[in-house]
Amino acid sequence: MSKDALWLSIRDEVSRTAAEEPMLASFLHMTVLRHKTLDDVVAFHLSSKLASPTMDARVLMELISEALAADPVIMQSIRADIEAVRSRDPACKDFSTPLLFFKGFQALQCYRIGNWLWRQGRHALAMHIQNRISEVFAVEIHPAARIGKGILLDHGTGFVVGETAVIEDDVSILQEVTLGGTGKESGDRHPKIRQGVLIGAGAKILGNIEVGKGAKVGAGSVVLKAVPPHVTVAGVPARVVGVCENDSPAEQMDHRIQEPLA
Amino acid sequence: MSKDALWLSIRDEVSRTAAEEPMLASFLHMTVLRHKTLDDVVAFHLSSKLASPTMDARVLMELISEALAADPVIMQSIRADIEAVRSRDPACKDFSTPLLFFKGFQALQCYRIGNWLWRQGRHALAMHIQNRISEVFAVEIHPAARIGKGILLDHGTGFVVGETAVIEDDVSILQEVTLGGTGKESGDRHPKIRQGVLIGAGAKILGNIEVGKGAKVGAGSVVLKAVPPHVTVAGVPARVVGVCENDSPAEQMDHRIQEPLA
Amino acid sequence: MSKDALWLSIRDEVSRTAAEEPMLASFLHMTVLRHKTLDDVVAFHLSSKLASPTMDARVLMELISEALAADPVIMQSIRADIEAVRSRDPACKDFSTPLLFFKGFQALQCYRIGNWLWRQGRHALAMHIQNRISEVFAVEIHPAARIGKGILLDHGTGFVVGETAVIEDDVSILQEVTLGGTGKESGDRHPKIRQGVLIGAGAKILGNIEVGKGAKVGAGSVVLKAVPPHVTVAGVPARVVGVCENDSPAEQMDHRIQEPLA
Amino acid sequence: MSKDALWLSIRDEVSRTAAEEPMLASFLHMTVLRHKTLDDVVAFHLSSKLASPTMDARVLMELISEALAADPVIMQSIRADIEAVRSRDPACKDFSTPLLFFKGFQALQCYRIGNWLWRQGRHALAMHIQNRISEVFAVEIHPAARIGKGILLDHGTGFVVGETAVIEDDVSILQEVTLGGTGKESGDRHPKIRQGVLIGAGAKILGNIEVGKGAKVGAGSVVLKAVPPHVTVAGVPARVVGVCENDSPAEQMDHRIQEPLA
Amino acid sequence: MSKDALWLSIRDEVSRTAAEEPMLASFLHMTVLRHKTLDDVVAFHLSSKLASPTMDARVLMELISEALAADPVIMQSIRADIEAVRSRDPACKDFSTPLLFFKGFQALQCYRIGNWLWRQGRHALAMHIQNRISEVFAVEIHPAARIGKGILLDHGTGFVVGETAVIEDDVSILQEVTLGGTGKESGDRHPKIRQGVLIGAGAKILGNIEVGKGAKVGAGSVVLKAVPPHVTVAGVPARVVGVCENDSPAEQMDHRIQEPLA
Amino acid sequence: MSKDALWLSIRDEVSRTAAEEPMLASFLHMTVLRHKTLDDVVAFHLSSKLASPTMDARVLMELISEALAADPVIMQSIRADIEAVRSRDPACKDFSTPLLFFKGFQALQCYRIGNWLWRQGRHALAMHIQNRISEVFAVEIHPAARIGKGILLDHGTGFVVGETAVIEDDVSILQEVTLGGTGKESGDRHPKIRQGVLIGAGAKILGNIEVGKGAKVGAGSVVLKAVPPHVTVAGVPARVVGVCENDSPAEQMDHRIQEPLA
Repeated sequence: MSKDALWLSIRDEVSRTAAEEPMLASFLHMTVLRHKTLDDVVAFHLSSKLASPTMDARVLMELISEALAADPVIMQSIRADIEAVRSRDPACKDFSTPLLFFKGFQALQCYRIGNWLWRQGRHALAMHIQNRISEVFAVEIHPAARIGKGILLDHGTGFVVGETAVIEDDVSILQEVTLGGTGKESGDRHPKIRQGVLIGAGAKILGNIEVGKGAKVGAGSVVLKAVPPHVTVAGVPARVVGVCENDSPAEQMDHRIQEPLA
Repeated sequence: MSKDALWLSIRDEVSRTAAEEPMLASFLHMTVLRHKTLDDVVAFHLSSKLASPTMDARVLMELISEALAADPVIMQSIRADIEAVRSRDPACKDFSTPLLFFKGFQALQCYRIGNWLWRQGRHALAMHIQNRISEVFAVEIHPAARIGKGILLDHGTGFVVGETAVIEDDVSILQEVTLGGTGKESGDRHPKIRQGVLIGAGAKILGNIEVGKGAKVGAGSVVLKAVPPHVTVAGVPARVVGVCENDSPAEQMDHRIQEPLA
Repeated sequence: MSKDALWLSIRDEVSRTAAEEPMLASFLHMTVLRHKTLDDVVAFHLSSKLASPTMDARVLMELISEALAADPVIMQSIRADIEAVRSRDPACKDFSTPLLFFKGFQALQCYRIGNWLWRQGRHALAMHIQNRISEVFAVEIHPAARIGKGILLDHGTGFVVGETAVIEDDVSILQEVTLGGTGKESGDRHPKIRQGVLIGAGAKILGNIEVGKGAKVGAGSVVLKAVPPHVTVAGVPARVVGVCENDSPAEQMDHRIQEPLA
Repeated sequence: MSKDALWLSIRDEVSRTAAEEPMLASFLHMTVLRHKTLDDVVAFHLSSKLASPTMDARVLMELISEALAADPVIMQSIRADIEAVRSRDPACKDFSTPLLFFKGFQALQCYRIGNWLWRQGRHALAMHIQNRISEVFAVEIHPAARIGKGILLDHGTGFVVGETAVIEDDVSILQEVTLGGTGKESGDRHPKIRQGVLIGAGAKILGNIEVGKGAKVGAGSVVLKAVPPHVTVAGVPARVVGVCENDSPAEQMDHRIQEPLA
Repeated sequence: MSKDALWLSIRDEVSRTAAEEPMLASFLHMTVLRHKTLDDVVAFHLSSKLASPTMDARVLMELISEALAADPVIMQSIRADIEAVRSRDPACKDFSTPLLFFKGFQALQCYRIGNWLWRQGRHALAMHIQNRISEVFAVEIHPAARIGKGILLDHGTGFVVGETAVIEDDVSILQEVTLGGTGKESGDRHPKIRQGVLIGAGAKILGNIEVGKGAKVGAGSVVLKAVPPHVTVAGVPARVVGVCENDSPAEQMDHRIQEPLA
Repeated sequence: MSKDALWLSIRDEVSRTAAEEPMLASFLHMTVLRHKTLDDVVAFHLSSKLASPTMDARVLMELISEALAADPVIMQSIRADIEAVRSRDPACKDFSTPLLFFKGFQALQCYRIGNWLWRQGRHALAMHIQNRISEVFAVEIHPAARIGKGILLDHGTGFVVGETAVIEDDVSILQEVTLGGTGKESGDRHPKIRQGVLIGAGAKILGNIEVGKGAKVGAGSVVLKAVPPHVTVAGVPARVVGVCENDSPAEQMDHRIQEPLA
């Protein structure tokens, strides 16, 4: 979808909603309709979420605008994430709903700002942003973690991602997933999630292990060993229970799994 | 319990608390004691929880009052839910505590307002309410889901309920439960939970499957297939591990399960 | 670590941060640098978190100061918890970060205040504090539960602890853990967690059962029976899968477990 | 003007403004357009002004509604005041502007609520309302003072009215006017302003003296003696400087005065 | 009145009000009843008034407590001011009303805190306090001005006091009074108001001139020359119009004046 | 003073204050030090003052920035006003204090934004801004009034300016001044204040009359007839009492006047 087409779709959707629902009209005008670019909308809306007595909404808005201007990958990722939610979540019928109302989506975009601050060496401010994300969205992504684009973080409640975790592009992750470490040694100690992986609700993936490209992790699984590409794992602890039926389980969002081998 | 008896009990309890704890006296007076009906208390207290810079507490209070007046089933359900918490949660010794302080209860009642809005076709406002529920309570119930009365939603953190899910009357649900979909097709795709079911903490139930009347789903289970009535299922993935010992496990709140067949 | 050494380390760390990050300078000065004791910092910062239209930040600050003065065990526990986070969480490189930014840590300390109120017989105020903890941190610890010192509550999202639960000293608990009851009878009905235990992410421990000293509960486990000291349990339901490799798994934070016996 | 005609005019004006100025659309919808009666608009808007951490906007709104229902003279007075502003203030081109934006008008209507509370014997609440009026509008009208209808309080800044003052119908009062007492004895000690009087900016009228029907008090005058009907007084101290040219100087708003007799 | 007697009277009055008016009960408990000393009440209530997004209420409360402890004259002055209002203002029937609800009184006490900061060399913080006083109370007293005790500042709206002004003990000042400078030279350039003076509403006193002990300045006067002790001045510009009938016009509050000599 | 020199002076002053007063450090950083231009500082600080539940601070900030960019005369006027305060007010020892802390100055600059909105035809928004100015600063300048640059509005409390008033450059105006209309006819009906005029505290100037270049209006005067250039008027009503001693009384700020001719 072209950059302009996405922005125009969002504006059209929001214009219709503003006309139908006067109680939200000024919120929608203030947040979306009066802006010239999607970047401005993102800076405005995320700053609404992160504002607190410790950090003024205007300062946050300018900080986010600065991040979006300095690192174009952030907006590319946000655009890809909007399209991922629209495409993969059947409860999402348009492009503006995740932007305005889905807290998994919003938490992920706030992380992207904290991650940019971390990369600039502003660790204390990044930790403050993370603290706000954890309070507002119940999501805890360490600002040093690396996360690609085209991510669907569905609901997101309880999502925990460690400092050295990596999530590649086009991954779908349901609620209550942990990408955690193991042991008290520092260094590289968190999972690496490769492209196209689907991680079911409540799954815990622990340690510096790889979940291979196109793999599927069943809901409620506890993964303690590397997962090969294009397989399904399930169970506590997780075992391979089948070959993954399609190249990108993240796209298919099929959470059914075969029975584990008894 | 008669309608009046419940309201009088709540008033009595709150009067005693207001006399004992002056720091909460005005809160209790403002929220409970000055009102003439339980409906007014509900409208006032839920609007306190949902208010935000986007939506004024007074507008929300009037909206909730409008919903309660238009659809009497909402207040019937709220009354039944209060009695369910009081009866089934041994940590709950009175009727006013869930109303005032239990976020699982409050999140469920806020959903009932969002659901009424959804049924009126006010989808954007319903999504806004759901967004607030997700931020304040860490609960995500799609406003189109259908939920009966006499529900105990204990704690509620992480509760996720999909668009086409159904929960019948007299169900008890612990924290971190998912009633999710599977696949990216729209249409009827979420679980149907029949009367009297008990769902343990952390259970994930996925797909358009039925959990039969009086069944029990063990904590941490991942349910991917229909569950017959009056059985206990447990495990990842869940299997039948026994017959359910009583007609309404939701009433008994006995989370013990037999060992799965090895 | 001596009492003074901890306070001096925190001041030093925060002074450096305030100099580097002017956006946080007044927050850090107001919250930490202008105070003479760590007790004052705790009273100030926790009151920032718990404040709401129902309860003014100044009243909460004075209430917390009163609790800290009346029961010295609270500050001893808070100091031990800070050192526990610093020592066991490899993502935590200093002493001030958990104090300022980690919501698991903050939720636990707010519980300590609510627990003191409960012990004074101020149950309604304790429930109000618990309600705020549940909204701000998505943590639900019943104020009557008893929790020792040297606790690492990592992230904490979804943590649920019942009324008669006990957690002894030097325990580490990851996110989404439940220490729950079973059945609808009141009385002693929740788990007893002995010293040095490590509880992995998502574990559910249900009923009046003991998890013995130095035991390890694997991530995602559902524990329905007592766990002997110095063993590892895992699975749904949990079984003994090995002897615990060291005396204090809480210190080691090693979440790897052996395969369960098939 | 009929009761309905005023309300319809206000709605029409506000509808046009909401369409032209999206930044104010939700404010206007929330405050005016969604309501069924002018009474509801008054209760909503005045409660917006008086709300503070001490007194919730919803409680104030219900209190104001209660006052308006109990004493119909209040709304009659408010309607007459709106028409007075519209008719006498050439800068006011419609009916909705004083209601929405003129602080002199709003302060006077808030006084009417405080006065009703005073008459119910709720003196502390009336004093709280007066305290808020003084902070928000810089207006101090003792809640026991008696004020008629058809009053234009233009700007209102610094307006001070004592406990036993009386203002009859159809009076116009500019900013910085004092109707004060003299001496430290209690009892009837403040001015009585008869119908149709015009009081210019900065005038001070002190003591239990009468300003007769249709009189005019020049700007900056200090009035220490009774003023006969239908004369103009001016100066420090004020003297009669002429006959009042028309029956109702309050209607004419002509602040010109003859030279005092030297 | 003894120190204890005043505090006990205030507590008694407030206890009665809290029992009668439940809407204010928690405000009164929080602000007055839970405190052990009048100093604590002052620190709490003034910090409620001065709090803003720039300066947290808790920090202000501690700053005010610090000022009251460091300079006992401040509390002596506040106590004397309460008694002055009670004694001289016939609309004030008790001791708690000025403390809780009179903005002239509150503005004066906030100035005393700003003045203490100024004397400590903390000029920027003193200017911030003055800025808040000007916004909340519409009062502008330069923090370097010197003001004695037993002052009645009635209403206070528009009160302006310059940097080098002095007000001695037992002075009564009505609303809209200016003690201003003249010319653009710095140095001592503002009025000196001696003991027992009464200044009527709207009076402007300009320049480094003395208003002698026991003098009375009529309402609306413009004073440009020194005023001898025990005379009454009035007019624009002010002239001596009589001998002052009693030793302390501030106590008598008699605003009547003789006619100026024509 | 060159544009850059003023901005550099302000930054230097504020940097010193931020180093000395940590309680204000983040406020000063947020409001001044992090910005690149004085325009940004103005947009940020005025939006702090005007923000309310009706209008978000970020929207106001962007609106103010838009106004400053569209009409360069606004910033020229603000710069000239800062220099006027610094030059004419002996209590003002630097350039940053009026900008940060003087409400007369701030109210005037907020009017300039409302005036720009009025000139764009956005009358409702201009009235909303004026309503906020009146509540925050107790100043009421009709947004259609025309005001030049180099204005000292000292304190400003009670300042009232009508719709068709004109204030030319280099005028000084003390508190409680009215530039009002007379009569109820619309059309040009307010005073015209020519260059260099000084208007003393409490003066009321009424009607479409001219106060000539370099004239001085004494404190407390009531001006009902045109004032020739370079004279001093005083009294109620005002008469010519002398020739003005210097070309620009606004610069000299000498409020002394000759005695009126008896």
